[in-house]
Amino acid sequence: MIVLDRIVLASGSPRRLELLRSLGFDVTVAPSGYHEPPMPHLSPRELAVSHAREKLASVARVDGAATVAADTVVDLDGEALGKPRDAAEAARMLESLSGREHLVHTAYAVALPGIEAPLEAAETTRVRFHDLRPDEIAAYVATGEPMDKAGAYGIQGRAAALVAGIDGDFYTVMGFPLGGFVRALRRLGFVPPTANRAAK
Amino acid sequence: MIVLDRIVLASGSPRRLELLRSLGFDVTVAPSGYHEPPMPHLSPRELAVSHAREKLASVARVDGAATVAADTVVDLDGEALGKPRDAAEAARMLESLSGREHLVHTAYAVALPGIEAPLEAAETTRVRFHDLRPDEIAAYVATGEPMDKAGAYGIQGRAAALVAGIDGDFYTVMGFPLGGFVRALRRLGFVPPTANRAAK
Repeated sequence: MIVLDRIVLASGSPRRLELLRSLGFDVTVAPSGYHEPPMPHLSPRELAVSHAREKLASVARVDGAATVAADTVVDLDGEALGKPRDAAEAARMLESLSGREHLVHTAYAVALPGIEAPLEAAETTRVRFHDLRPDEIAAYVATGEPMDKAGAYGIQGRAAALVAGIDGDFYTVMGFPLGGFVRALRRLGFVPPTANRAAK
Repeated sequence: MIVLDRIVLASGSPRRLELLRSLGFDVTVAPSGYHEPPMPHLSPRELAVSHAREKLASVARVDGAATVAADTVVDLDGEALGKPRDAAEAARMLESLSGREHLVHTAYAVALPGIEAPLEAAETTRVRFHDLRPDEIAAYVATGEPMDKAGAYGIQGRAAALVAGIDGDFYTVMGFPLGGFVRALRRLGFVPPTANRAAK
C-alpha cells in the first residue's frame, strides 16, 4: 500500500476541503474555473459525473499528489436542481422539496499518481424533508446559506432542522462521499495518511 | 413565538457544543459531573433517556436560558455499548460492529424558561458498517478518536470511511438530534435565534 498524503482539490467548496482534511490529507485548493453548462439530455446522476470529469480535466496534475474533483446534484423526480440564482429561486426550491423525498448524487473524478485513467464514481443518498412552513423557509433563505448550494440547502448548519432523515451516506449529501472514496483508493493500492491533521 | 437565545449545555462533548452553535445558539458549557452507572435492567434506548434525565437534574437552571442534557448509546442487538475503557476494548467493539447494522439512540432532556416539566425525547438511527479489516481497525484505534465515544467511533472524521450508510437522522449518530430538537422547541412556542453565530 502507498500512503497518499497530498491532494489537489479542484473545487472551491469549503465543505469538501474540510471533509478531505478530516481524513488527514494535506489538501491544496485549485478551483477549476469550469462553469457547469446546462445538459438537459443527461440524467441528474449523469450530470454530476460529467461535471466532475470536466472539472478534473480543467486543472493540471501535480507530481506525487492526487487531484480530486467532485460535483453534487439534487434530483427531484429526475429534475436536476443546481444552485439558486437568487433568494426567490432558493425559496421556490425549498418549497418544492418540502414534505417529501429527493435524491442527492455526488460524483467524483480523481487523478492518482502513476495511474493514467482517472478514478470515477458516484454515490446517491435519499433525503426526506419535513413539511416546511413558509416562515421557516423565509428564515432559512435569510441566513444566506442556500445561495452556494445545490437544491438551496446544506445538510450541515441550520438546514439540519429541515431534514427528517436520510437513507445512505451522509457525506454524499454534504458534498463528498468520504467512505466510498477511501475504499476506492484502497482497491487501487493507496491509503490515507496516518498523521492526524484533522482540525479539532 | 419566543426567541430562545441562550443554552446551558450539561455535557462536555465538543460535538454537541458545535452542533448547537451551528443553529445560532449562544451556548455555555456546564458539564454535569454525573457518572453513568450501569443499569442492566434498562434497554439501550431507556438507558440513554435515563442518563439524559439524570444529567439534566444534576445541573442548576439559569434564568432565561434553556438547559440541555443528552446521552448517546450504541445498541448492538440490545446490548448497550458505552465508551471503551482502553484501546483493546475499542478494537473489540469495532470488530463487533464490522460488516453489520446497529442502532444509535440519542436522548435529550431540556429545561425551558417558564416551563416546569423538562422536555424529554429520544431518536434512533440505524447505522451500517463496512467489513473492517484488522489493520483498518488498528489504524483507527491508533488515532485515539474512539476513546471518548460510545461504541468506539465517531461518525465524523476518520470513522466516516468505516460507515457504509445510515437510515435516519445523521445528527442523532453525532450526538444530538438537531432537527427533532428544533421542532420540539417550536411545538412549545420557542424558536432558535435569528442572528447567525455559526462558525464559518
